[in-house]
Amino acid sequence: MKTTVGISNRHVHLKQSDLDILFGQDLTVKNKINQPGQFAANELVTIKTDKAEISNVRVLGPVRGYTQIEISKTDAYKLGLNPPVRTSGDLENSEVVTLIGPKGSIKTNGCIIADRHLHITYQDKEKYHMPDKIYVKVGGIKPGIIEVNVKASDEAYFEIHLDTDDANAFLLKNGDEVEIVDL
Amino acid sequence: MKTTVGISNRHVHLKQSDLDILFGQDLTVKNKINQPGQFAANELVTIKTDKAEISNVRVLGPVRGYTQIEISKTDAYKLGLNPPVRTSGDLENSEVVTLIGPKGSIKTNGCIIADRHLHITYQDKEKYHMPDKIYVKVGGIKPGIIEVNVKASDEAYFEIHLDTDDANAFLLKNGDEVEIVDL
Repeated sequence: MKTTVGISNRHVHLKQSDLDILFGQDLTVKNKINQPGQFAANELVTIKTDKAEISNVRVLGPVRGYTQIEISKTDAYKLGLNPPVRTSGDLENSEVVTLIGPKGSIKTNGCIIADRHLHITYQDKEKYHMPDKIYVKVGGIKPGIIEVNVKASDEAYFEIHLDTDDANAFLLKNGDEVEIVDL
Repeated sequence: MKTTVGISNRHVHLKQSDLDILFGQDLTVKNKINQPGQFAANELVTIKTDKAEISNVRVLGPVRGYTQIEISKTDAYKLGLNPPVRTSGDLENSEVVTLIGPKGSIKTNGCIIADRHLHITYQDKEKYHMPDKIYVKVGGIKPGIIEVNVKASDEAYFEIHLDTDDANAFLLKNGDEVEIVDL
């Protein structure tokens, strides 16, 4: 079975009260992304730690019930952080960073490295007898096989989300095709 | 069969005439590295392109017959380059960068992304019936299997060299153990 990859650069999800402090206005849509209802916002923040800062980090909308900062391991070294690898919303022992927006700043936990995950509907997961972890073959000049978590939801666009470290290690670009294999 | 990994951060090898221009002196040893006769020098250069620059890039010694700049894909995006993935010394169609040292600067080709490779002696390669490409299983929180080129030489310290993109994608550190597997 084949699927495509979506490469997630570092980004931030915000809860309403944090959005209010950082921007004092609603998120505005820059462009829709593949996952139903979600969008890249025009709004950008700076992630700051004692060691360094990274600016122009995009906010993804809509607002969520929690604020979450997703960075790569490469970013983590730069920022002097050691965030856990987690699925969205699992923020126990996540790292603390300062987020700076045009209207204010907050110090918040919620900084993680997102796990590699496949988006799929509950319906399709059952239909294809998909386990909770799959193996995905990546071709090209630096090939390999990676373990990917299966993340089912009511609505989903069928694609694998990888961060920029995985993408750069395998020379993958947004929309590239990979293959789900048996190991 | 198990082995360890050595993580190569971006670095530069210099030929004598380029060393003369950049530093006007011989390389000095900061510390030996695992591969016989090789060392990390105290000398640092800046890699510069039209788009960006990266400073404090370490020179590895001793001098070679060619100047070679090894960067990651992450570095390549920052610098606006598209270097080929290559084994050391294969510099056809490599990218051109400017190197800046304390005594001068040069514009040179030789910028590549190093391939994933296993260092092994010719003798051991034969002894272990090692093919030219192997598959290496990486454990941990973000596991997978990567294809690695086998690079035999007269003298070698048996270890796999990966760049920082591979290391960060798999959360690998210098000296971590991995396993050579059959696929």
